[in-house]
Amino acid sequence: MSHSDPSGRPLPPILPRATTLVDESGDHPLDVIAVGAHPDDVEIGCGGTLALLAARGARVGIVDLTDGEPTPRSSGPAERHREAVAAARVLGCVHREELGFPNRRLFDSFEVRVALARVFRRRRPRVVIGLGDRTPLASPDHAQATLITEAAVFYSRLCKWDEVFAGLPVHVVPSLLTYFLTPSVPAVPVGHFPLVVDVAGQLERKIESIRCYASQFPPEKAHVLARVQAAAEVVGAMAGCAAGELLASCRVPCTNDLLGQLFPPTPPVSR
Amino acid sequence: MSHSDPSGRPLPPILPRATTLVDESGDHPLDVIAVGAHPDDVEIGCGGTLALLAARGARVGIVDLTDGEPTPRSSGPAERHREAVAAARVLGCVHREELGFPNRRLFDSFEVRVALARVFRRRRPRVVIGLGDRTPLASPDHAQATLITEAAVFYSRLCKWDEVFAGLPVHVVPSLLTYFLTPSVPAVPVGHFPLVVDVAGQLERKIESIRCYASQFPPEKAHVLARVQAAAEVVGAMAGCAAGELLASCRVPCTNDLLGQLFPPTPPVSR
Amino acid sequence: MSHSDPSGRPLPPILPRATTLVDESGDHPLDVIAVGAHPDDVEIGCGGTLALLAARGARVGIVDLTDGEPTPRSSGPAERHREAVAAARVLGCVHREELGFPNRRLFDSFEVRVALARVFRRRRPRVVIGLGDRTPLASPDHAQATLITEAAVFYSRLCKWDEVFAGLPVHVVPSLLTYFLTPSVPAVPVGHFPLVVDVAGQLERKIESIRCYASQFPPEKAHVLARVQAAAEVVGAMAGCAAGELLASCRVPCTNDLLGQLFPPTPPVSR
Amino acid sequence: MSHSDPSGRPLPPILPRATTLVDESGDHPLDVIAVGAHPDDVEIGCGGTLALLAARGARVGIVDLTDGEPTPRSSGPAERHREAVAAARVLGCVHREELGFPNRRLFDSFEVRVALARVFRRRRPRVVIGLGDRTPLASPDHAQATLITEAAVFYSRLCKWDEVFAGLPVHVVPSLLTYFLTPSVPAVPVGHFPLVVDVAGQLERKIESIRCYASQFPPEKAHVLARVQAAAEVVGAMAGCAAGELLASCRVPCTNDLLGQLFPPTPPVSR
Amino acid sequence: MSHSDPSGRPLPPILPRATTLVDESGDHPLDVIAVGAHPDDVEIGCGGTLALLAARGARVGIVDLTDGEPTPRSSGPAERHREAVAAARVLGCVHREELGFPNRRLFDSFEVRVALARVFRRRRPRVVIGLGDRTPLASPDHAQATLITEAAVFYSRLCKWDEVFAGLPVHVVPSLLTYFLTPSVPAVPVGHFPLVVDVAGQLERKIESIRCYASQFPPEKAHVLARVQAAAEVVGAMAGCAAGELLASCRVPCTNDLLGQLFPPTPPVSR
Amino acid sequence: MSHSDPSGRPLPPILPRATTLVDESGDHPLDVIAVGAHPDDVEIGCGGTLALLAARGARVGIVDLTDGEPTPRSSGPAERHREAVAAARVLGCVHREELGFPNRRLFDSFEVRVALARVFRRRRPRVVIGLGDRTPLASPDHAQATLITEAAVFYSRLCKWDEVFAGLPVHVVPSLLTYFLTPSVPAVPVGHFPLVVDVAGQLERKIESIRCYASQFPPEKAHVLARVQAAAEVVGAMAGCAAGELLASCRVPCTNDLLGQLFPPTPPVSR
Repeated sequence: MSHSDPSGRPLPPILPRATTLVDESGDHPLDVIAVGAHPDDVEIGCGGTLALLAARGARVGIVDLTDGEPTPRSSGPAERHREAVAAARVLGCVHREELGFPNRRLFDSFEVRVALARVFRRRRPRVVIGLGDRTPLASPDHAQATLITEAAVFYSRLCKWDEVFAGLPVHVVPSLLTYFLTPSVPAVPVGHFPLVVDVAGQLERKIESIRCYASQFPPEKAHVLARVQAAAEVVGAMAGCAAGELLASCRVPCTNDLLGQLFPPTPPVSR
Repeated sequence: MSHSDPSGRPLPPILPRATTLVDESGDHPLDVIAVGAHPDDVEIGCGGTLALLAARGARVGIVDLTDGEPTPRSSGPAERHREAVAAARVLGCVHREELGFPNRRLFDSFEVRVALARVFRRRRPRVVIGLGDRTPLASPDHAQATLITEAAVFYSRLCKWDEVFAGLPVHVVPSLLTYFLTPSVPAVPVGHFPLVVDVAGQLERKIESIRCYASQFPPEKAHVLARVQAAAEVVGAMAGCAAGELLASCRVPCTNDLLGQLFPPTPPVSR
Repeated sequence: MSHSDPSGRPLPPILPRATTLVDESGDHPLDVIAVGAHPDDVEIGCGGTLALLAARGARVGIVDLTDGEPTPRSSGPAERHREAVAAARVLGCVHREELGFPNRRLFDSFEVRVALARVFRRRRPRVVIGLGDRTPLASPDHAQATLITEAAVFYSRLCKWDEVFAGLPVHVVPSLLTYFLTPSVPAVPVGHFPLVVDVAGQLERKIESIRCYASQFPPEKAHVLARVQAAAEVVGAMAGCAAGELLASCRVPCTNDLLGQLFPPTPPVSR
Repeated sequence: MSHSDPSGRPLPPILPRATTLVDESGDHPLDVIAVGAHPDDVEIGCGGTLALLAARGARVGIVDLTDGEPTPRSSGPAERHREAVAAARVLGCVHREELGFPNRRLFDSFEVRVALARVFRRRRPRVVIGLGDRTPLASPDHAQATLITEAAVFYSRLCKWDEVFAGLPVHVVPSLLTYFLTPSVPAVPVGHFPLVVDVAGQLERKIESIRCYASQFPPEKAHVLARVQAAAEVVGAMAGCAAGELLASCRVPCTNDLLGQLFPPTPPVSR
Repeated sequence: MSHSDPSGRPLPPILPRATTLVDESGDHPLDVIAVGAHPDDVEIGCGGTLALLAARGARVGIVDLTDGEPTPRSSGPAERHREAVAAARVLGCVHREELGFPNRRLFDSFEVRVALARVFRRRRPRVVIGLGDRTPLASPDHAQATLITEAAVFYSRLCKWDEVFAGLPVHVVPSLLTYFLTPSVPAVPVGHFPLVVDVAGQLERKIESIRCYASQFPPEKAHVLARVQAAAEVVGAMAGCAAGELLASCRVPCTNDLLGQLFPPTPPVSR
Repeated sequence: MSHSDPSGRPLPPILPRATTLVDESGDHPLDVIAVGAHPDDVEIGCGGTLALLAARGARVGIVDLTDGEPTPRSSGPAERHREAVAAARVLGCVHREELGFPNRRLFDSFEVRVALARVFRRRRPRVVIGLGDRTPLASPDHAQATLITEAAVFYSRLCKWDEVFAGLPVHVVPSLLTYFLTPSVPAVPVGHFPLVVDVAGQLERKIESIRCYASQFPPEKAHVLARVQAAAEVVGAMAGCAAGELLASCRVPCTNDLLGQLFPPTPPVSR
């Protein structure tokens, strides 16, 4: 792995193999970037949160580290890309790109960290939301994506690294959160603390965004969507709302307005 | 214990032995009530939170279940009451009362539950903040106060109980939180979830309110105040602010405005 | 509390104020007894498990420690008793009794322990299923019922106690489990271990048994039933079945037939 | 319960019903007091620790809150007392007393707290070791004993309480630890921290002290002793010694001599 | 690492360097495969479970990722292989192979994942049992083996991967469990749930299988075998049997026959 | 990564690029080695412990895996090295070296493990203290350093490895501890147990050693030093001393002298 080679040999370029799927962000930075290992991870884990953010006027983007292909019923990356574009539009996201790393064999490495950090430096999000659960029964890519995202947030803010980020200014990401894929009770890791986003008004949109992946959720897998809905209701019950998505952070949730925290006004939603 | 007697015998009256220490609430209900076993519990555990709430215009009250006496350096209840009044004024609280149950031998019982629930029915708080840690090395009253406060919040909302609450209408307390006395790392109980209140602007006022208890914190116990300050800094570091107080709830902290949660505006403080 | 008086004074009798609601057990002992603080606790917490046990031919009984009254919409104990009888019949239980202790002020005491232990000595269950969660936001009776049930299981097996259990032979309850009321993610206590019962085939019957309590679940509280169903789906997803109920024990689940544990045959269900 | 009555009525005397079983302490205070609910609790939970302390010259005492009777094979309190005396002598303890509270119905109450605190004030221990696990499948007395011991340590240091402790000076117990009865993996409670005592050289003596209770451990219960031994080996393996006993405290174990902590010299043992 | 190279270059073949040690499985698929990093891992962690499965007629296999050599007293891989064959026969296993990856420097990588997944595709187990504890004081290979086994279970079921698994059909492994090496109290990871296998009848056979590794357990290491036995007794006590092995899964143990779960019949054992 | 290549190709040499910064150890082995990813890690995490050890006469060394550069205000490795030398001298350490692996892209690999294990084989410490927390918001190097240190302790004791450690005899490190960087409440990992070192007398020296890194802690970052001090006070309060550092181990803290553990004599400090 030449980039981690301490020998001092020149670093080979990291080839920009990323595919831009949606880009309506113009010249403006993004407010929030959600990172998934495969297209549909962010929809399942935090689609309601992204829809709510967008509905409130935030500029939201999605980065998929791999194209998620091949899968049993998909004709390949092009079809999956089209589904990802449709899902992003349902959620109201203004940017989506896919970084081109290999599905099924994603490893935390210098190359992937740098590629993702380049996106952060370009798009300058205030919040990054990455994968949070290890999924021992599903893809090992998820646990690797957790490590990659944490490292890329760190790489984004490191100065004096022009040989790697030539021209891209540093960017400090102020807030890093994680979302959970497990369609049941997520186990917040030791040292992390939970926060629920009230997505009652966005649950339908979330489900609709998942349905965009027709290749992944054919009719015989409708029970998965039912489970996503049941999980949202149960997470909501844990937090006192009708439907919720669980996020976590290694920072404890903080407020300087306790009554506003406990009895939030309902801000206007633009759509 | 006659009140828990299932035999159907008439219930003896619960004598109103409470002492009103501060009452500037006029006819208005309170927004928040903090409950302590002894005067100075709420100051140590959530004094900054109460000061911040009051500074933002909330109507805040304090209930002490006992008078906390005798103690080594205090001349007795009258002195402790004067200290409690002074501390309440420092924090900006508009109400404080002491329920008259016996210090050092407080037990969760029907009588105490009812007496506290009567306060909730009269004062109609939206938030109750009670004790949260067992303190195996300090007073057993603290663990009993946790049980009493939970039960009183429940009793407050039960209908068809005129023989106990004659005339007092039911009141649903929408939110129950706990605070922690341990001057070190509080152990949030299993099934509870943490929330930090940013009290950076109120830390001095909190310390000042504790200093009002001159009988409890004479000069040779100044290290206790230093520990309170260090704990506030450490809790703040866990949550990304300069000084914090840890609260907990069996509801996960919830937001419908994620960017507002992570990057709160600084609301105006009236004092 | 005279029964816990160590002075040696004669013990007053524990009056049998229990109300037998269902008794079709004939002379046979029960296989399983579920214990609740209020009628509807066992239906919400483990109704599917009881229905499944009964459907497989087990003799199942229910003990309610209180009558659960008054409540806002019920006309009183008689109506609640009728609902409890109906629910027991829906679940296929052959025995239900209500012990007559006071709702809203149930405390772990010698009297209640003995009264429940008497039921265990008479009915000789192989399994007792009691309440497992503290419910800080709901009735304090639940936490007391946990303590009472544990103690009663112990009292049931103690010899040389004729002054208390005159005539009733000792009975060792081989297995004690707990169920959870929280309509969200139950927090299994430290030192306890979870076990899920696959109730996919009994979920409708469970919901039907809860609906028997028309006074407790009027149409405007239909969302509670929806949450019970969502929780069952989420618990099922944690365990690999379509719908589950979470039980816990301080014994780790044990098997001497690992393949049978992981790939259970579907035993015949008689109804 | 008159002692907790806040009404101001005169307190009835707490009758000294305690039985002194061993007293060779002369006029000297004790270094360590271990507290059990029933005779044999301390032997099973921390007998090796007590034997080691005594062998090193510490003055060790035992307090049993009840006489532990009746039990199936014992002829009664007198026989159990004789067994307790023999066990104390095996362990090298210089004091043992039994406080006379009722077995099987021990409750945390003012009376028991005071009775135990009186022992602490008289015997002035530097360390108290109490019960630490709830034992939901065994006697509820154990959990009550935990609460009683914590409260008594607190009561021991409270000044201005002559109406309760007439003549007995206050005594601050500097260290409170807990031991565990569970013959398997003890679950250290949240907020407590473990410490293992290397009892490799005292394991035989511990087993011998348990065998003194011939009425409790007849030949057909020999497997219990085998389990105690296996648990000691497993606890030892967790801590790097051949046999250990697990203690816990709400203070984290502390050292000012890290190499001495990790590589302790073997101090001389006097027997 | 060419296999994880996203560049699209052709993948080099994964050379079949595995050594088949035992193969009596004929044409039949295996029921259970246990995976270890080194020969003797599975014997220590789940030898009793494997013996019990085999005794009940299940077809059990073992895969060792490395040959475990060199070690102080072994003459090398040939000797260790002979020991592994003998141990497999003691346990009644019909298949054992060693995959030839380098002991002491095993890393989770695409090559190892694929090599193990090939075994799963060929042998088609219903259950895979892999390593579960990190062993910070022992070989880092163990933690890597956990990751490798999880990934290989996933790789086994992925379709459209002929360039890697040419000719080998996909195979879904329905159940993945973990075993623990720590000869003391295993720490089940967050998000996993324990299940104990009652191995009372197989404990001798388990110890015998470990003894087959004479190069690893010479007489002066007899205390390790004693600890394995003590740990089995303690784990058994946690679960209500005389000797147990602890397994874990990220699925909660599930039953559709609660009485059968709690009071299992003793199925016939064929040897 | 050629070293982990199982193909049997000859291993390339691991080039000794380490820089010796301090070496006053003469021919004597070290008692303690603390390992950091970057110069200043060990000062922040366990500087007080190292100072105390040295003051008591222990021979203490430090190994930095990388040079920690570049950073915003440092002129580069030479300046950082000078700071590291000064800090080591403040703490009284007799050895410090920097292994030359690349900052910001440290990965657990065979090469780094071997390079660190070579130091252990040469310096023969009785205690190694490594990094213990993952720091998801800071450098990913920290988590890698944890894995590297555990593996190097294991590699240090493996025999028959002359092709890697030619000439260097094996060395068993008897004790491995971890320290924590988080300036707030460290989360001891599952399966690890805490131990606090009383550093009250060394806190000033610890702060002074951190101040040696003027390039890292310029005046505008003075709040970091204040947080280190507050954390020490809070950790001390958890353990009953005025200032503490938290260490952890997968071995439970063990004592064979309980009174000495709880009431340690104050050993003489030589400076």
